[in-house]
Amino acid sequence: MKKDSTNFREVCPACGIIDRFGDKWSLQVLVLLNERGTMRFNELMKATPGISQKMLTTTLRTLEAHKLLTRTMYAEIPPRVEYNLTSLGCSLMKPLYSLIDWTLKNAAEITNTVKNDTKNAD
Amino acid sequence: MKKDSTNFREVCPACGIIDRFGDKWSLQVLVLLNERGTMRFNELMKATPGISQKMLTTTLRTLEAHKLLTRTMYAEIPPRVEYNLTSLGCSLMKPLYSLIDWTLKNAAEITNTVKNDTKNAD
Repeated sequence: MKKDSTNFREVCPACGIIDRFGDKWSLQVLVLLNERGTMRFNELMKATPGISQKMLTTTLRTLEAHKLLTRTMYAEIPPRVEYNLTSLGCSLMKPLYSLIDWTLKNAAEITNTVKNDTKNAD
Repeated sequence: MKKDSTNFREVCPACGIIDRFGDKWSLQVLVLLNERGTMRFNELMKATPGISQKMLTTTLRTLEAHKLLTRTMYAEIPPRVEYNLTSLGCSLMKPLYSLIDWTLKNAAEITNTVKNDTKNAD
């Protein structure tokens, strides 16, 4: 699929931005918040298999810094902290689910028969 | 945008797979090959600002292993090596451009005012 309406120089910056939320932890957190709505840190921790507390903290901070989610702290004892998608984060879901749907459809082809041949490196 | 037809457990594996081609170098290489067709290693190197030879080699190997591009070596002196998107790689372009278009549209909001506040980490 050639796309003549864009060119690499225009598109290139988007690749760097997608890199900031295109890792698996960020994508999982975005999908979780989209599906379940408001979540607390410990709920996200339990719902994200394999993530460490440090990685979840970093992931949430990065997504918050990029305006994709909000972090709301309530002055209770103990303090209650809740995470929600922003409207920007919600608007990301449509193109993100297109990519997820494509990936699920083609997962077998992408992940099977990964070659170990590293000869003839160019 | 809630999406009731999927749930996190189904979608979760896709996030790990997207992670494999969601980095900025992979995305740039995919976009370049889509826009320009067949390219040689040195052409990709020149067209991808800031990438190292080692990183380009790794990126191309990973995309080849995941069936998104082909690497064809011609027995010439010096050997000629060409890279092309596979049909799977081509089919990725539609959802990928949706995400790129969203990102370009929202780039200012995502990248501006990144907070440096790391207090009150949860």
